Amino acid sequence: MRIYDIIDKKRKGKPLSDEEIRFFVKGYTDGSVADYQAAALAMAVCCNGMDEREVVTLTLAMRDSGDTVDLSRFGNLSADKHSTGGVGDKTSLIIAPIVASQGGRLAKMSGRGLGHTGGTIDKLESIKGFRTTLSPEEFMEQTEKVGLAIIGQSGNLAPADKKLYALRDVTATVESIPLIASSIMSKKLAAGAHSIVLDVKTGSGAFMKTVDDARALARCMVDIGKAAGRNVAAVITDMDTPLGYAIGNALEVREAVGILRGEGCKALREVCYTLSAKLIELCLSVSEEESRERVRDAVESGAALECFRKWVEAQGGDASFVDDLSLLPQAEAKCEVYAPQDGYICSMDAMEIGSACVMLGAGREKKDDEIDYAAGIVLAARTGDRVSKGDLIATLYAKSEDIAKAAMGRFAGAIKFGDEPPEKRPLVYDVVE
Amino acid sequence: MRIYDIIDKKRKGKPLSDEEIRFFVKGYTDGSVADYQAAALAMAVCCNGMDEREVVTLTLAMRDSGDTVDLSRFGNLSADKHSTGGVGDKTSLIIAPIVASQGGRLAKMSGRGLGHTGGTIDKLESIKGFRTTLSPEEFMEQTEKVGLAIIGQSGNLAPADKKLYALRDVTATVESIPLIASSIMSKKLAAGAHSIVLDVKTGSGAFMKTVDDARALARCMVDIGKAAGRNVAAVITDMDTPLGYAIGNALEVREAVGILRGEGCKALREVCYTLSAKLIELCLSVSEEESRERVRDAVESGAALECFRKWVEAQGGDASFVDDLSLLPQAEAKCEVYAPQDGYICSMDAMEIGSACVMLGAGREKKDDEIDYAAGIVLAARTGDRVSKGDLIATLYAKSEDIAKAAMGRFAGAIKFGDEPPEKRPLVYDVVE
Repeated sequence: MRIYDIIDKKRKGKPLSDEEIRFFVKGYTDGSVADYQAAALAMAVCCNGMDEREVVTLTLAMRDSGDTVDLSRFGNLSADKHSTGGVGDKTSLIIAPIVASQGGRLAKMSGRGLGHTGGTIDKLESIKGFRTTLSPEEFMEQTEKVGLAIIGQSGNLAPADKKLYALRDVTATVESIPLIASSIMSKKLAAGAHSIVLDVKTGSGAFMKTVDDARALARCMVDIGKAAGRNVAAVITDMDTPLGYAIGNALEVREAVGILRGEGCKALREVCYTLSAKLIELCLSVSEEESRERVRDAVESGAALECFRKWVEAQGGDASFVDDLSLLPQAEAKCEVYAPQDGYICSMDAMEIGSACVMLGAGREKKDDEIDYAAGIVLAARTGDRVSKGDLIATLYAKSEDIAKAAMGRFAGAIKFGDEPPEKRPLVYDVVE
Repeated sequence: MRIYDIIDKKRKGKPLSDEEIRFFVKGYTDGSVADYQAAALAMAVCCNGMDEREVVTLTLAMRDSGDTVDLSRFGNLSADKHSTGGVGDKTSLIIAPIVASQGGRLAKMSGRGLGHTGGTIDKLESIKGFRTTLSPEEFMEQTEKVGLAIIGQSGNLAPADKKLYALRDVTATVESIPLIASSIMSKKLAAGAHSIVLDVKTGSGAFMKTVDDARALARCMVDIGKAAGRNVAAVITDMDTPLGYAIGNALEVREAVGILRGEGCKALREVCYTLSAKLIELCLSVSEEESRERVRDAVESGAALECFRKWVEAQGGDASFVDDLSLLPQAEAKCEVYAPQDGYICSMDAMEIGSACVMLGAGREKKDDEIDYAAGIVLAARTGDRVSKGDLIATLYAKSEDIAKAAMGRFAGAIKFGDEPPEKRPLVYDVVE
């Protein structure tokens, strides 16, 4: 078998055999297939696609290229949630304790933020003392005891995907549903959970700009998960505007606690409740109705917040902020943005607001950039709200007033006002299972 | 400008700006664009194509990436001929002296053979003493005095193409009309001739398997040439069966002399006359009819053969073989192939016959392989001929009987017999100008 013939076949738009796909993944991982050959193949896949069998084979080959986590001791209860990435997306901090409080077991690995999207690990590290590295034994024990543990990527999970993703990132071959789906699912499958809910974002702040694209990606990932014998569903949610009011690490932890207290942004709550209910449905095998009720109960009874507190403490974090949010990192400077006119907020470009947050110090441009945990943005109004000239729109937080002011222009440019209210976008577009 | 955005644009099927194409060619030549990025872009071009303006810009940028030959002293008379490669294609050895004998000036660079296709330089080197390397001064002086000089690739012509071609060769991105056309034309334009005839082959032994593909490639190359201010025409000729009776270096020189004497294979003569006439038409600006007549005269009067003799002598070759063909290298062993049945020869797979020749020692599998100049095949019958069981079909020549016998199976497998004569294929399909 020759890699040349495999590339040639895909260039001509023909499906690759399982053997050919495995030959490529093995060869690329061990270096016998060169970067330029993998780049050519990735581009051929971008242009000519892959069918369901090919995507499943690619995903499983990448999953099997490195370590896999064994969560079989938790059976169907082992639960995971993945988001395709967004701005102000703190749903993991909320969903994990809700689901764990109902019996789900979340031994979860999360990532750091890059570019305009944040990462759960950065958010957790804004909590004093919180350890995002645990030994495999600690990880399992905590999951058993508290119901959840979230750590950074550890071990050698799906190294083929890691190598291929880095290559796609410099060869403009990221935007391909088969490649995105296999990349995400190879890691998710290697991470071991049996019940998985995928939050596929759509809109200006998401990779998938249209609902149709998001639906196609969701379908592809769910099919892969099922073919691998897992229990998977995808929820397509809106990311045209940031999710909730807060963007920035400690600011988002604060907002997450609010939701667990039963307060805060209605839209954020609705998305978290939907995702949590779907995950409970999958891992406890209960009806949609019952799982929705369990979610409401978990919050209203305080069980979810209690689980959150125990979780933070189990990972070495100081949980006193749960009762006094002012104990979270506080920014040294802030800067307020006011409405320049009467009218409706027609759109808030999530991608641009994410970029303004990077300028404020809340995110990274490059992998090694340091983060200011206290920095970020708290919106006072969201898309669709009616405002009067001079009303507060948002507060920007940063290390210094200069930094905050520098980001103001970018933030302000992301907000569009108009005389008419914008068409209402749904929060949840579809559930794919 | 970022190469990422350029690749991304072509992935989406959008045309690249002239500036973007030049940025890529410059960057790839100087190493600031990586192999894997060039491979991704090449694949995106394979899948999504390029429009005429893009192909012209790519060609000119590659031409300008290195040295160019200045043939302006010869004006329109400076003539060149290029073939897309075939089996038994000795037309340059015939056309060059015919055209030179009529006043055309051919300061020509040619290549060596690789794989199933032969190369003019190898054929010339089968002549005792023939020098295929000349200094730039010798090259020009000889062209002025004798009317023609053919040397191997010299100087740093179109280095961007050289690098890109090597990459395409290992990334399955060869088969793309914009990439093939720009590759050929960047070298042809750098080589300096004003009047150029392209021999675009089609059929089983050619890159372009169908006449439609050959026509599209011809159209693309002629358009590029015209956009660069050159006088260019393309002739689409058949390469479903080897051209003429001889395949192999010295064997082809022998056959070429035969044609210049007015003898030999009718099909080969017809193709050579058509190509020669088209080139005379372009460089002397005479009518098609007149140029056809000039070609016939050149051969019948012996002027073309005389020019051939002077050319060989000018490049240091011993031209005595022109009068006594037995002075050419003679193989030590031979092996005859007979018809296994009565019937018609329905097809002779040119690619397979070329591969049998490589086995005989007449060609190269890898760039550094040595060549046996005497080796090769002389057909006794061609496609369409009626044969009786036991008739001689071909003689295979090699260094030893073992080598000749080893290639017999391959050769025999390339010949298909039948009870009915095959559909007659034209020798010349079309002229594109």
